[in-house]
Amino acid sequence: MPEIASALSKTAPDVPVTFTVNELAAQVGGTVIGDGNRRIKRCCGLESAGPEDISFVSNIKYIGQLNTTAAGCVVVDAKLNHQSIKRPSDSPLTIIQAADPYFAFRQIMVAIHGMRSHPKPMVSPLCDIAPSARIGADCYIAPFVTIGENCRIGDRCVLYSGVQIMAGAELESDCILYPNVVVYDCCRLGKRVIIQSGAAIGCDGYGFATHQGVHHKIPQVGNVVLGDDVEVGANTVIERAAMESTLVGEGTKIGNNVVVGHNCQIGRHNLLVSQVGIAGSSTTGDYVVLAGQVGVAGHIRIGDRVRAAAQSGITSDIEPGRDIGGTPAMDFKLAKRVYLQIFQLPEIAKRLRAVEAKLANLVHKTEEH
Amino acid sequence: MPEIASALSKTAPDVPVTFTVNELAAQVGGTVIGDGNRRIKRCCGLESAGPEDISFVSNIKYIGQLNTTAAGCVVVDAKLNHQSIKRPSDSPLTIIQAADPYFAFRQIMVAIHGMRSHPKPMVSPLCDIAPSARIGADCYIAPFVTIGENCRIGDRCVLYSGVQIMAGAELESDCILYPNVVVYDCCRLGKRVIIQSGAAIGCDGYGFATHQGVHHKIPQVGNVVLGDDVEVGANTVIERAAMESTLVGEGTKIGNNVVVGHNCQIGRHNLLVSQVGIAGSSTTGDYVVLAGQVGVAGHIRIGDRVRAAAQSGITSDIEPGRDIGGTPAMDFKLAKRVYLQIFQLPEIAKRLRAVEAKLANLVHKTEEH
Amino acid sequence: MPEIASALSKTAPDVPVTFTVNELAAQVGGTVIGDGNRRIKRCCGLESAGPEDISFVSNIKYIGQLNTTAAGCVVVDAKLNHQSIKRPSDSPLTIIQAADPYFAFRQIMVAIHGMRSHPKPMVSPLCDIAPSARIGADCYIAPFVTIGENCRIGDRCVLYSGVQIMAGAELESDCILYPNVVVYDCCRLGKRVIIQSGAAIGCDGYGFATHQGVHHKIPQVGNVVLGDDVEVGANTVIERAAMESTLVGEGTKIGNNVVVGHNCQIGRHNLLVSQVGIAGSSTTGDYVVLAGQVGVAGHIRIGDRVRAAAQSGITSDIEPGRDIGGTPAMDFKLAKRVYLQIFQLPEIAKRLRAVEAKLANLVHKTEEH
Repeated sequence: MPEIASALSKTAPDVPVTFTVNELAAQVGGTVIGDGNRRIKRCCGLESAGPEDISFVSNIKYIGQLNTTAAGCVVVDAKLNHQSIKRPSDSPLTIIQAADPYFAFRQIMVAIHGMRSHPKPMVSPLCDIAPSARIGADCYIAPFVTIGENCRIGDRCVLYSGVQIMAGAELESDCILYPNVVVYDCCRLGKRVIIQSGAAIGCDGYGFATHQGVHHKIPQVGNVVLGDDVEVGANTVIERAAMESTLVGEGTKIGNNVVVGHNCQIGRHNLLVSQVGIAGSSTTGDYVVLAGQVGVAGHIRIGDRVRAAAQSGITSDIEPGRDIGGTPAMDFKLAKRVYLQIFQLPEIAKRLRAVEAKLANLVHKTEEH
Repeated sequence: MPEIASALSKTAPDVPVTFTVNELAAQVGGTVIGDGNRRIKRCCGLESAGPEDISFVSNIKYIGQLNTTAAGCVVVDAKLNHQSIKRPSDSPLTIIQAADPYFAFRQIMVAIHGMRSHPKPMVSPLCDIAPSARIGADCYIAPFVTIGENCRIGDRCVLYSGVQIMAGAELESDCILYPNVVVYDCCRLGKRVIIQSGAAIGCDGYGFATHQGVHHKIPQVGNVVLGDDVEVGANTVIERAAMESTLVGEGTKIGNNVVVGHNCQIGRHNLLVSQVGIAGSSTTGDYVVLAGQVGVAGHIRIGDRVRAAAQSGITSDIEPGRDIGGTPAMDFKLAKRVYLQIFQLPEIAKRLRAVEAKLANLVHKTEEH
Repeated sequence: MPEIASALSKTAPDVPVTFTVNELAAQVGGTVIGDGNRRIKRCCGLESAGPEDISFVSNIKYIGQLNTTAAGCVVVDAKLNHQSIKRPSDSPLTIIQAADPYFAFRQIMVAIHGMRSHPKPMVSPLCDIAPSARIGADCYIAPFVTIGENCRIGDRCVLYSGVQIMAGAELESDCILYPNVVVYDCCRLGKRVIIQSGAAIGCDGYGFATHQGVHHKIPQVGNVVLGDDVEVGANTVIERAAMESTLVGEGTKIGNNVVVGHNCQIGRHNLLVSQVGIAGSSTTGDYVVLAGQVGVAGHIRIGDRVRAAAQSGITSDIEPGRDIGGTPAMDFKLAKRVYLQIFQLPEIAKRLRAVEAKLANLVHKTEEH
């Protein structure tokens, strides 16, 4: 892909200010080993990094790359024995040791690159805001945004083009809604909520009462309430409650193309990875992690700190603290053993046939005998 | 989540009119046991309901909650022995017995809350309608809607902001399209179709002819036809046919983030739950239920009233009336037994090894003998 | 569905020009058997085709339909023995034999129907284009499109209504973006890229550093680069890289509701079918096929020409050229045998119990003996 490779050279944003390694280490409470006066201007992956870039090693299995990387500086775990790094003497590596190296590197990324900057506050004349809506101070409201009757938009919110806020919805301050996000009527977003493009917050729950062969739509008169610091991925769908509220607790991060069914109560600081589906009225505790494509049946209770492996199918309540996997979801360690045996199934069947034959033979002989 | 709990108090819509229990029971042909003159103003879940709220019990396992709920009235199955409810004498519960309690409660929800009300008919001056498009009477067309050449929009349709109707598409009367729905060229929607936000109706089918290492796009010259009373969930995708039509039969309800492939023929009154995926040219009969995350291969025929459990993988034709589950999909009862045994696999392998050892030992002895 | 059936008669586009079978055969290098002077005006499925329609047989199992189809002409594999077709003498069938009949039929579809035609070049006065954006020649830019600062749009691009191009994004020539597509800041699209409605290109990657109980957002400072001739399905999500670029190689075709995680490197000419999910930093070689609902874990390397069956779960690196299936993904032939045995699991358990009982009995007897 040569033309793509050359394209890459354009992706590195220009950063006007550079930092010394010492400055960066000081910000994250890290220890510098090597030349702390090197100047750094960009964060970069280990393989692509150059002498003015800082990178990091998240996983012990990539430690070997420290011997060869061209990066100017690498953030590593404080527990790493840096003397195990074998570098040519004419190309020493500067490292920053940090107790939580992933978080330290994140702090350095924020220091160097910052979060995405948004357009300056303004309300576009090309948007459509109902007279009864109240818009806070210093908002950016892009063209082709609509804000319905009685909405309330908090201070410093950023609403990109094509965002549709239906009547009665309320956003606390500092929310960022990317293009074409839809917030249905009467839904409520806490502070600093981020919603990626195309997500649907508060569409009707999938509720039908089947009577005499017809699926009658059940009015969905509840709403969705997202706590502070929730992030919702692109094209994710969170259904409004039939009655009362579908809740997502503060600090929970939801991936792309996830579906959260009506009346779910998602706890705080969950990680719901892309393509997870949770059927109606299920609840999760705090710090639950559901990996990609996990499915959860309706009316299930998942305890605090449960972690489910990708593609798990959760069909019964799960006690707090458990790691699970497989379909139907079972203890993760058991799942690993089960899935090892699954490969052996044809072999098991063959061995069982052999045993049966031998045994029949033996029985025959014994009886004969 | 205290701040979220307080937020909830805002979600109950104000309902100006109240009903007595007797009035509600009369509307649904139910039998009142207790004080029929109580006034009810809201539908609510059993746990949160107060003395002016009506709730219902759908599942026998929640019957115990009838002893403690603060609800003013609860709709229950006519078969429930109401004398089994143990309430303190100073807080009697009024119940409505109904033959189909879920449908009865739905009717009561409609009576009290109604369906979502939409803005008054008008055509926004901020939308873009091609001169050749014909718009029916009493439509609501929001800002930033586009309607292409030769489209026909039936009476009383509601098109929310950001809806895009491409050239030649036709909507029968009383359709509701939520924000940012896209209807591609020449697709046709029956009467009373509801489409939640972000859904794509009639995008190109995934059709490519691979020739000499290149995937050549096959023109997708068909369309999508949705029957009357179809509902389509948010961010769901229904591909247009390569030739002729992808069909969805009347009364079928489709969840969120579902994909229906090109040239599928979905029957009437199906329930396709969120994240279901159906590959091209497959067909379903009437009253088929595919639970969440079910996958269906291409060119499959699924008979009337088949029901597939969540996450099933359907790779061969299914006869009418069958309940199925698992991957590849098998009889549901068998699937339940199979998945019970899957947990036992490591144990089975261990027992088989023990049997083999014992048998070898025995053979050895017998031969010795 | 009688009303739907009649609706179908409207879906066949009027084609002003007709072709003879001989003309069509000549375009695709095919051999005509039968009346080459028949006039053809439409491509159609075998079952619905009439005397002025051309159809094709892709699969040997549908060969029997050649005896009964009313089609005027059918494209078949050159290897088909056409003398095996049993037609009444008064309704002979004209066939075109082609070495690659699927591709030949695709060429005929293009000849007869062409690709979708788009509106004439124009820039709508109802769109919002930043002063610093550069728009190529002969573009169609629909109403309610936004194009941010410093964007570059190549010649002959088609941007349908509601498309949002954020600051600094670049499109090469001849791209087609259907309604409500979002391209985030600084992403780059090659030539002739097609994106179906609602897709999100370059939303933030799902990256959080958890520190003291809080998931801290990691700035996503990279972008997405799509190679030439990439097609992206409706409501699909391709996350931008945390650093550097998420890449999709030229000629790769992606279905609907797919998620490609941040920093993935997708090879050339891949087929990623609907609802596939690929976690962050995974790579695929060229000509990889992932069927519907396949899940790929993070940091996985998938070799050239690997093909994975629907719903597979790929949790480890896969060598080039392998066909795989199942969860966790295994050799496809093994997977087929495994899934055959899975049905037998209850039976295996029963037989194992029988063997154990017999063996115990035998041991008992032998010892007695």
